[in-house]
Amino acid sequence: MFNKKLVEGLGKSSMIRAMFEEGARLKKIYGDDKVYDFSLGNPEVEPPAEVIDTLKKYVNSGEQGLHKYMNNAGFPDVRQKVAAYLQEKSGVSLDENNIIMVCGAAAGLNVTLKALLNPGEEVMVLAPFFVEYGTYIGQAGGETVIVNTIKDSFQIDVDAVEKAITDKTKAIIINSPNNPTGVVYSEKTLREVAEVIHRKEKEYNINILVISDEPYTQLVYDGVTVPSVFNTFKNSVIVTSFSKSLALPGERIGYIAIHPDAEDSDLLVDGMILSNRILGFVNAPSLFQKVIAECLEEKINTELYRERRDFLYNHLIDLGFPCIKPKGAFYLFPKAPIEDDIKFVNRALKYNILLVPGTGFGCPGHIRISYSVDMSVIRRSIPAFRALAKEFY
Amino acid sequence: MFNKKLVEGLGKSSMIRAMFEEGARLKKIYGDDKVYDFSLGNPEVEPPAEVIDTLKKYVNSGEQGLHKYMNNAGFPDVRQKVAAYLQEKSGVSLDENNIIMVCGAAAGLNVTLKALLNPGEEVMVLAPFFVEYGTYIGQAGGETVIVNTIKDSFQIDVDAVEKAITDKTKAIIINSPNNPTGVVYSEKTLREVAEVIHRKEKEYNINILVISDEPYTQLVYDGVTVPSVFNTFKNSVIVTSFSKSLALPGERIGYIAIHPDAEDSDLLVDGMILSNRILGFVNAPSLFQKVIAECLEEKINTELYRERRDFLYNHLIDLGFPCIKPKGAFYLFPKAPIEDDIKFVNRALKYNILLVPGTGFGCPGHIRISYSVDMSVIRRSIPAFRALAKEFY
Repeated sequence: MFNKKLVEGLGKSSMIRAMFEEGARLKKIYGDDKVYDFSLGNPEVEPPAEVIDTLKKYVNSGEQGLHKYMNNAGFPDVRQKVAAYLQEKSGVSLDENNIIMVCGAAAGLNVTLKALLNPGEEVMVLAPFFVEYGTYIGQAGGETVIVNTIKDSFQIDVDAVEKAITDKTKAIIINSPNNPTGVVYSEKTLREVAEVIHRKEKEYNINILVISDEPYTQLVYDGVTVPSVFNTFKNSVIVTSFSKSLALPGERIGYIAIHPDAEDSDLLVDGMILSNRILGFVNAPSLFQKVIAECLEEKINTELYRERRDFLYNHLIDLGFPCIKPKGAFYLFPKAPIEDDIKFVNRALKYNILLVPGTGFGCPGHIRISYSVDMSVIRRSIPAFRALAKEFY
Repeated sequence: MFNKKLVEGLGKSSMIRAMFEEGARLKKIYGDDKVYDFSLGNPEVEPPAEVIDTLKKYVNSGEQGLHKYMNNAGFPDVRQKVAAYLQEKSGVSLDENNIIMVCGAAAGLNVTLKALLNPGEEVMVLAPFFVEYGTYIGQAGGETVIVNTIKDSFQIDVDAVEKAITDKTKAIIINSPNNPTGVVYSEKTLREVAEVIHRKEKEYNINILVISDEPYTQLVYDGVTVPSVFNTFKNSVIVTSFSKSLALPGERIGYIAIHPDAEDSDLLVDGMILSNRILGFVNAPSLFQKVIAECLEEKINTELYRERRDFLYNHLIDLGFPCIKPKGAFYLFPKAPIEDDIKFVNRALKYNILLVPGTGFGCPGHIRISYSVDMSVIRRSIPAFRALAKEFY
């Protein structure tokens, strides 16, 4: 038998896969335009024109060496540009030695955890959270410690964080704007978390690394800016990708930035570069390293997403779904009208609506609605949501 | 402290890193053209014109969706093209469900091992071998069992393979043409290995997967063709990349092909697709999936490499270095004139020659010379090799 744990995982995920298959079946019967698929967290738009133009420039240039191996950390000139960009944003002094180019944020998280963890060490995650964090932590030999955020607001519960820190705590993963809630953690809360961490580090004589998973930082609305983690936490790394901000999810391009004042930062960087190689990533794709280095200030048109958020949010509230108005990302995370979110998601299928149960994010009783979906689909879905709501409210 | 095993690994590799640093120091002092760097296994040429033209075609086409997420296994049309290509090559019936696009061969091996292994199960490797196999196997929870090839010929020692199979043997990794020896395993030997495997599978009531790591299959000389693993082993997978054959090492693009008659092949494929996602690879870079699908019949000009092999091989033989004439890849693996290959590699530095000790491939007493180096460098290096040889012969 193959990897038993993995085969069990295949079994477990079969419920969600069954739902996707049900979605495909519905589309066949009723037509694509009669099925409302809010299940996927993928950018629905094309990359900004500047990205496509830069890509064309490189490909048509005849420049040599665009597809070659480089240092496992990435091209030095690319890392330098990323460092300069982040320095300007955060005010923290950075150079290319603080940057490692990686194959997307999932790669960056695996590389970071591999470099960091010894068997049994603990990494804290804040529920609701992207469920594969637990898998990544396990792969690196660590234990996942789940701490709930505050009910309804989904802001960090600082007391709960304090209570969950033990002498084995090695890191905490922060994801703001958050998948699945769209919530942006406030600067005040982050400063309180920093205080708690300092206190506990002294108490236990440990170091706790803050790992900030930031793929949605550029996707914020209503004039919100995401507080710089580098300004709040010295012992921190930023892991991010251009999947969402430049709509390049298929190209697997991102970076890790290591705070210059992080504990033993040189050793951590060396460990991450080695991890990048031995985990099999080797290096971030070379051509797209060059492309993103010239597009660091670009982002997709967030106005399109804001419009969809507002439209769908307003309708959901009208229909009676309790929901936080998210400040970032492209998800709504309303409360389900019944406790059993899986049952509710299955009920929604009756109306050709595809959702993801909150259970999949460590937060039962809620549902995730991705509004990275064409506006026409969102408009057409409202009568279906209305009919669904009528069953419960 | 960070991951202790990894930090130790950093310490261990520091000897080789020190050599590279010494190389950089030598280049600074004597100039690039006075230092003969044979240490790197990287294609020294640019991709074939057809690859660059196909890349331009896609980038300039304005086609939508080139940079989006797709199924974790890769674009269906790309997988179909790879399947058709491999079917024609091997005569084995294949469709897109037998192909998973991956971020290069290193990714493919990690994905395969993760899907396959339970803790403590054994994977056989044939020394000399690419040393990171052991790391990949360990990451997937397995144990590496090293079996030496036949002295001097580096062909598979079938008896030794038979003796090393236990009831815990789950797979054997074959790498032909081989890094570091350049040897191509003969069809006769592979058939004998197949017989041994069948016998032992019955004896222990186990299944042994043959994992064929094939990045160098296209780089063969003297009219040699590499026997198709699919024709010899039913329970087999091919893992390969376009890093060497299309000189695209920076782009991280390759595939896994699963034999349709492999044990539980559907479940194995599902496990690999899930592994691709949870290990953080997610999918192979999207644009280059499209590009390679139209360049499967292309390869770099191997005549350039053959010329370098012949020139360097003939000189090394003349100078007294015992060496197999390799039929593939771009490495020579002569015997060092002293048992201590690390000492010899350090001695070579005196003549500004950079080599890799065989110890790094589980085969002490030898040295690896990569001839993926400009012909002018190879020519200029001969007097240095002569002076080095004079110290020993």
